[in-house]
Amino acid sequence: LDEARTCSLDFVVLPIAHPRFERASSGLGSTAMRAQLLGLPFTRSDVLLNSNQWQRTVVGQVSRWIRFDDATRIGALACERALDEELAWAAHLGLPAVLLPMLTGHDVEYARAVNHQLVKHQTAFAMWIEVSMDDDGWRRWNAFRRMTGHSPALHCALVVPDVLPGEDDGEWEVILERWCGEPVKVALFPTSCFIANQAGYPTLGARHRRLFEVLYLRKVQFVIRGRPRHANGLLPYPGYLVHLGTRAPAPTEREEYEAPYYDYLQSPLQPLGDNLSSGTYEVFEQDPVKYTSYQLAVEQALLAVPDLATGRRLVVMVVGAGRGPLVRAALRAAERVGLESRVFVYCVEKNPNAVVTLLNAHRSQALWKGRVQVVSTDMRSWEAPEKADVIVSELLGSWGDNELSPECLGGVERFLRPTSGVSVPSQYTSFVAPILAPRLFSMLRAMAKSQTDFSDAATAAFSLPVYETCYVCRLHTFFEVAEAQACFTFVHAPRPVPLDNACYERHITLNFEARCDAMVHGFAGYFETVLYRDVALSILPSTYSTGMISWFPLFIPLAEPLFVTKGTRIEASFWRRHDERKVWVEWQVRTSLGACTAIHNPAGRSSWINL
Amino acid sequence: LDEARTCSLDFVVLPIAHPRFERASSGLGSTAMRAQLLGLPFTRSDVLLNSNQWQRTVVGQVSRWIRFDDATRIGALACERALDEELAWAAHLGLPAVLLPMLTGHDVEYARAVNHQLVKHQTAFAMWIEVSMDDDGWRRWNAFRRMTGHSPALHCALVVPDVLPGEDDGEWEVILERWCGEPVKVALFPTSCFIANQAGYPTLGARHRRLFEVLYLRKVQFVIRGRPRHANGLLPYPGYLVHLGTRAPAPTEREEYEAPYYDYLQSPLQPLGDNLSSGTYEVFEQDPVKYTSYQLAVEQALLAVPDLATGRRLVVMVVGAGRGPLVRAALRAAERVGLESRVFVYCVEKNPNAVVTLLNAHRSQALWKGRVQVVSTDMRSWEAPEKADVIVSELLGSWGDNELSPECLGGVERFLRPTSGVSVPSQYTSFVAPILAPRLFSMLRAMAKSQTDFSDAATAAFSLPVYETCYVCRLHTFFEVAEAQACFTFVHAPRPVPLDNACYERHITLNFEARCDAMVHGFAGYFETVLYRDVALSILPSTYSTGMISWFPLFIPLAEPLFVTKGTRIEASFWRRHDERKVWVEWQVRTSLGACTAIHNPAGRSSWINL
Repeated sequence: LDEARTCSLDFVVLPIAHPRFERASSGLGSTAMRAQLLGLPFTRSDVLLNSNQWQRTVVGQVSRWIRFDDATRIGALACERALDEELAWAAHLGLPAVLLPMLTGHDVEYARAVNHQLVKHQTAFAMWIEVSMDDDGWRRWNAFRRMTGHSPALHCALVVPDVLPGEDDGEWEVILERWCGEPVKVALFPTSCFIANQAGYPTLGARHRRLFEVLYLRKVQFVIRGRPRHANGLLPYPGYLVHLGTRAPAPTEREEYEAPYYDYLQSPLQPLGDNLSSGTYEVFEQDPVKYTSYQLAVEQALLAVPDLATGRRLVVMVVGAGRGPLVRAALRAAERVGLESRVFVYCVEKNPNAVVTLLNAHRSQALWKGRVQVVSTDMRSWEAPEKADVIVSELLGSWGDNELSPECLGGVERFLRPTSGVSVPSQYTSFVAPILAPRLFSMLRAMAKSQTDFSDAATAAFSLPVYETCYVCRLHTFFEVAEAQACFTFVHAPRPVPLDNACYERHITLNFEARCDAMVHGFAGYFETVLYRDVALSILPSTYSTGMISWFPLFIPLAEPLFVTKGTRIEASFWRRHDERKVWVEWQVRTSLGACTAIHNPAGRSSWINL
Repeated sequence: LDEARTCSLDFVVLPIAHPRFERASSGLGSTAMRAQLLGLPFTRSDVLLNSNQWQRTVVGQVSRWIRFDDATRIGALACERALDEELAWAAHLGLPAVLLPMLTGHDVEYARAVNHQLVKHQTAFAMWIEVSMDDDGWRRWNAFRRMTGHSPALHCALVVPDVLPGEDDGEWEVILERWCGEPVKVALFPTSCFIANQAGYPTLGARHRRLFEVLYLRKVQFVIRGRPRHANGLLPYPGYLVHLGTRAPAPTEREEYEAPYYDYLQSPLQPLGDNLSSGTYEVFEQDPVKYTSYQLAVEQALLAVPDLATGRRLVVMVVGAGRGPLVRAALRAAERVGLESRVFVYCVEKNPNAVVTLLNAHRSQALWKGRVQVVSTDMRSWEAPEKADVIVSELLGSWGDNELSPECLGGVERFLRPTSGVSVPSQYTSFVAPILAPRLFSMLRAMAKSQTDFSDAATAAFSLPVYETCYVCRLHTFFEVAEAQACFTFVHAPRPVPLDNACYERHITLNFEARCDAMVHGFAGYFETVLYRDVALSILPSTYSTGMISWFPLFIPLAEPLFVTKGTRIEASFWRRHDERKVWVEWQVRTSLGACTAIHNPAGRSSWINL
């Protein structure tokens, strides 16, 4: 431990039972029984270290002779008893985690034994289970976590092979990406995967360096294992990894901002039903990209007005103005294209608290005088005094239409100048991708379980079924099983009368093809929007608007995860539905392997309110 | 209705909406909207019949133009609105059931609409959905019920085809058998599937007659549909079916006894932990087969005693004697083989209430005098005064060892005469078969849901997780997806010392192959026992002991049903486990299609007590 501290290591991995009592798994009795026969304790005393040391700096390694893959029933019982003793000892010491022997592909008995321990110790310590990094390793891990009921206490410990596939190996890239979707807590680098530099010190080859970097950026921890094979003993190995870590790219501003939200599940905003708070407005107004794009879109829209040359006054309506960022963007746009004297802005807002800010701006800011009129009302019931050249709004949610932009704008589209009027945004499209997201799934399981365990009838009636709600979430530990596809599109254009809500109903069935063997725990939801012509915003990973921080993706869960193999067809149906007072989404998935989920969220048990 | 009554029919199926308003599904608006345009009600008044008539004799048929398979979004919305109106009307009338249009194979939109209605109307009325009887029909039904969340309110209405496959068509036999596992409420016989007899009256061909009989014995209801094509109008059709019904075989005594228990889930007895009641003893003592077999086994065991010729006294121990049926069987056996004067019976019973009965028998029955000794103790702690030639017990449960016969007999095996002593039963084997059992699965879902909805923390802690317990159940609406296989075997023979409980631990992994496309909702558990040499008892369907009524099978549920196609490998693991005070079973299943369940019942959350 002293040596480890000098090398600024966080922890060491030590055997829980004394290696003296290791023996072939075919023997009789457990470690403790054997130790007792010899009149010895089965391991060293707990007073060797103080509690703080055990609890912060030691990870316990379960004896590696404990195997369940080919044991007889009696042998399996002996292994199970030994596992039970060692984990009881780990719990006694208060270790933060234990490292469990490698999966072999014949893990049913092993899974049952570990499952028993998971039930017994709950989340007293984390269990790290060794898995090989190849495709087989993932399949074993996947079977194991399904057998043990998706416990949040179970994590992967990736065993790094000495020889890695080349960089042009597409399969390997997919395998690596898929591991990034799994709860990997640690990577085990054997000393044998290091090569010697000119001075004889350990260093990693290019491919191993790349692997290290990928895992390092995912905050995976590293363990060096095996006897030293290079100059100066063990310490140069971790020293080298620490050095590599300092060379990894620093996080971007966006990454720094978003990191605290990784994999955190939030309920979507309901800006139509609830009034946003000052703090919420403040966060969204800070986006460095969004309002610049809006400004650019309005500039181009103003310049494209067909009868611009007549010199008439140009009307911009900002609907859902909040505390005014779009008003400012519109005024800046007018100024930039030299039309500041001809542009008049109606600024419509339903939240009386935000209207206070708007009226103050109107009083204090010279630019607003005579050019802006604040209207305190719900845009859906507003009767505009004239037609608009441009209607500007920012009503989009993580999944585009999910904060009811279509319904809200439906009420004001009739005020657009016939043929020439434009809406900014002019259209938007939601996207979905089936994803592996075991971490989120475990969280939902735990939430569902706590609803079952602790809720009385009264709270149960108020709590939403956890698998029938969409969540806003900065997806981090996940893997796209297939590329995202477009889901629902809405286009805004001049229209004479408000439309029947039925026109905002949608149904689509999408066909995805799995890139590799995987589980589908749900869907990632994204959107793209065209503000005006070539000015667009996107939170779709492949077209992401660099630097934008306003939106996290949506997570659309499945109550039962689906297994797919490479090439499996994933057929997913989504509906956007209405009744008299609410809007909701239902979803359902089936695979060409015969899986078929229930229709999620029937009759809109969880919904967006459209009062 | 008057005509129907004269023909002693139970109900008629009538359209909910007036056929006047039927139209192609491509039209606009719903039935009610169209009717309103014409200034007419969309159907006849509810006062035409009184409530009792609506509620007892009318099944409503949903308009058959309502289709969701190829409709545009607007068309689908019109169909959905029409469905909503018609089912609201059915609920208003209080109809017991509605008949819904046929599944087509493109049923996602249809499923969503029906799911909405199931959520809205809950179990106000049953929904019967038309399905074709072929393999495609089953697949559609299976997808539909999975999409609609296994609602117990949804049933099949089988549409009988005009031409049925021949009797030698193995596929058809399997299809028919599989339908017997589904919640089929009604079979629709079109008039076109009848042929004319010599007098021109409708009659069924041999294959249709057989189909009728199979369904009739399963208590399926029948509907005649279509215009009359034979002599004398419609009434001869139901008249003929009523006649066929009277010719169907009468139920056996066992069927009559068991019918009230069909598909009823019970907790297994815990005779070791709880003392059985007088009523329970009475039921089991009435078995017409079991005690005769025991008597026969004891006769043969006595005659096989190696040193029978020495004329020494022969010792029979009845352990767990209850109220004495095995004592009587042993005494009768001795008498039948002329050994009544040489046989002495120890009669060991732990239940003090049953001991009262035994002591009374000892006082009142001449046969018992000097030949029987009643011992009031637990067999596991009894110290027998001499060795036994035969130990007789009846400790078996539905799954053989599940009432802890191995553990109980383990304590007395040491009193068997070395080499020659025999136990009756001498061995027993449990069996399991993967089954389709949607009815039981729906019941468990409802139980699980009510635990979630209404239980507070206190009751939740006491209620067992519904999918982690085995149930005793007279399985009726089920289908064996593959033939049963042997699971655990226990053999009883003379042994010097009581065994460690670890010797009663078992683990087995079985491989089944699905006979056809199906869902696996769990396993049926059975057992066979060899009492002595060729005297056996069995509740395994293929070797059932005719007339025996003592045991119903076990149902071992899965929390998530598994889909399989014909030929899919079903790999199932079962463990019989011990700790200091209890015995339990864990189970886990995976299929070659990639399904993989959690390990059920980890750490023995539901168990048999072995105090």
